[in-house]
Amino acid sequence: MFNQELASRAAANLQQIREKKPLIHNITNYVVMNTTANALLACGASPVMAHAVEEVEEMVALAGALVINIGTLSPPWIESMLAAGRKANALQIPVILDPVGSGATRLRTQTAKRLVKEVTFSVIRGNASEILSLVGEGSEGTTRGVDAVHTVAQAEEAALKLAGTLDTTLAITGAEDLITDGEKITRVLNGHAMMTRLTGTGCMATAIIGAFLAVSPDPLEAAATALAYFGLAGEQAGAQAAGPGSFQTALLDALFLIKGEALRAGARII
Amino acid sequence: MFNQELASRAAANLQQIREKKPLIHNITNYVVMNTTANALLACGASPVMAHAVEEVEEMVALAGALVINIGTLSPPWIESMLAAGRKANALQIPVILDPVGSGATRLRTQTAKRLVKEVTFSVIRGNASEILSLVGEGSEGTTRGVDAVHTVAQAEEAALKLAGTLDTTLAITGAEDLITDGEKITRVLNGHAMMTRLTGTGCMATAIIGAFLAVSPDPLEAAATALAYFGLAGEQAGAQAAGPGSFQTALLDALFLIKGEALRAGARII
Amino acid sequence: MFNQELASRAAANLQQIREKKPLIHNITNYVVMNTTANALLACGASPVMAHAVEEVEEMVALAGALVINIGTLSPPWIESMLAAGRKANALQIPVILDPVGSGATRLRTQTAKRLVKEVTFSVIRGNASEILSLVGEGSEGTTRGVDAVHTVAQAEEAALKLAGTLDTTLAITGAEDLITDGEKITRVLNGHAMMTRLTGTGCMATAIIGAFLAVSPDPLEAAATALAYFGLAGEQAGAQAAGPGSFQTALLDALFLIKGEALRAGARII
Repeated sequence: MFNQELASRAAANLQQIREKKPLIHNITNYVVMNTTANALLACGASPVMAHAVEEVEEMVALAGALVINIGTLSPPWIESMLAAGRKANALQIPVILDPVGSGATRLRTQTAKRLVKEVTFSVIRGNASEILSLVGEGSEGTTRGVDAVHTVAQAEEAALKLAGTLDTTLAITGAEDLITDGEKITRVLNGHAMMTRLTGTGCMATAIIGAFLAVSPDPLEAAATALAYFGLAGEQAGAQAAGPGSFQTALLDALFLIKGEALRAGARII
Repeated sequence: MFNQELASRAAANLQQIREKKPLIHNITNYVVMNTTANALLACGASPVMAHAVEEVEEMVALAGALVINIGTLSPPWIESMLAAGRKANALQIPVILDPVGSGATRLRTQTAKRLVKEVTFSVIRGNASEILSLVGEGSEGTTRGVDAVHTVAQAEEAALKLAGTLDTTLAITGAEDLITDGEKITRVLNGHAMMTRLTGTGCMATAIIGAFLAVSPDPLEAAATALAYFGLAGEQAGAQAAGPGSFQTALLDALFLIKGEALRAGARII
Repeated sequence: MFNQELASRAAANLQQIREKKPLIHNITNYVVMNTTANALLACGASPVMAHAVEEVEEMVALAGALVINIGTLSPPWIESMLAAGRKANALQIPVILDPVGSGATRLRTQTAKRLVKEVTFSVIRGNASEILSLVGEGSEGTTRGVDAVHTVAQAEEAALKLAGTLDTTLAITGAEDLITDGEKITRVLNGHAMMTRLTGTGCMATAIIGAFLAVSPDPLEAAATALAYFGLAGEQAGAQAAGPGSFQTALLDALFLIKGEALRAGARII
């Protein structure tokens, strides 16, 4: 029923991360810096946060992947995101974008669009409204703060086109995740409702895709396998959590404890 | 013994937040961004953090309430706080101020005073020293870092006058919370000593009052009922915590798990 | 076998912190602000985070120690670090430096070196690569992001010289911590492997040394006793944690729960 090849790839990629401990350079938002760093450490990667335009090009040159997240944006950070993204492109280091809140304000929507235009992203991960905001003009107001007002299904058709136009892989996360490069569509069924009650789970998912990109050359595979891993950790955490506090604790533990074989068995990718 | 009407209002307000999921726009400090977002999510609200002057007016226009917190202040953020506050006032969106560390340095005291002068706040929540620092001139040095050096009782008389002068509602939190609009006084007895051993509990209280303001038009009621809810969660967490680590976990769980009926029964408002 | 005098001093210093509750002024990185504040509170100190050049001199004047951490550096923060550091020096308030990521980029290495030149530090705490990056020219690239690529033993000889040259105390943390003022060498054996899987444990260690400096005039003693306390908390947390999530919770609890006598008995300083 589930894609066994991708389940095996998930296990292999996780194992690779734990062996190679790739450095993941994050230019991300203030809200999630701590939890993102912890998620990457639990996964087996080595996180670094650096945002000054004076150092991002040097830092990204040391990294296995670059994560750009616009969740608490301001103009100086935009310049750093562009500089780091271009440098990563020049060095063929994979870059992933999380357009947090794109569609809520012009600053976010226009920045997301500018980033997509000036930097080549291996993967763009967002909720349905954030991804839809990247399509067309005048899309401000499509996102409510950082919350989706569209379902993944509502974004599917537009995402297929957009992935082709941008020549990138889109990962739209929700109750069921959709990953597409404009031709192929892969879905990840792993996950738990409690993930929506903890801040930054989307941002953590993006960072973990970054870690998988550092060991897997295929963006579709990296995104799908990373989301299966993160969703499985969510399932294990959700099974034992009373609320979002104990869920957060259990999620980090699960990310750390899940071994390749458990991931191969638990990945629900179709 | 306790105010049954306000206890019922607490339950009704919490229920409303969970139904309407109001967007709460926070311009807050770096220390508490993650835990504040999680407290708002556990409560049932939808948090967004946005601080760039380029987007705060658009973002606040989407929100049910605006939370301004000066805990890690710098000049660009002050301009954003003023712009967002004025916009919220124009749109009749309630605004709450947390003057963290006002009284410790001139930057904080003068910024708090400027905010209070240029923006209409539905509620100002602080510890006794922070609230006292808003009265009169030359009040720098009344606060020790972000810690109160006065008791709530010592600030009571000044708070009554200040609330009248500013035409706002003051919420002074401590072992016993005092809420006054300059005429009426309401006290909330809920709470737990462990709340002083976890960073950001005051900031979380402010944000939760913001969520209650988004559904309740009466600032005194919103502040009292929010503090009863937050204090009750603290009591439940304190009853099972070994220290501040397990307290933090249990606090988020309790905020999530407390239902209207339990809040009605447990609120100790007088 | 272990140094009983320093074990007794550890207990006495911890007791002093809990009695005096020294204000610790932190100019630190975004990733660890929350967890550093919580570690200081659990220890018994009173943390404040303030970074604006407009207020750091006033804030540090209220403090028992100043902690400077370059983990998410940008030019405006550098000016604040220098201003606060100079003011602390003028007031004879102890200052500690955490050169996070020095050796990874020029911005970090040069800033660390400039700070060391223009501010007198009681203690500098870092991993082996960060400390080595402070020696000589052209040391960029010695650190991989924020991870050490050298062992403590590899840095020992250079550290002895550097401590003498800089007239400071160096604390190099790793599996076994080394503290030296250029003449004496003290080692702390406390700690747990899980500390490397949680972000910010090094930064927490630095902040806790800051709290110990606020009550102990001897930098070597302050660093060794603080690291024994922090390492013992790590051991207790590690004994009960399933992964980094439960470790983080248990670490804060342990910092809070450890009493002087338990620290005296558990400190492994040689």
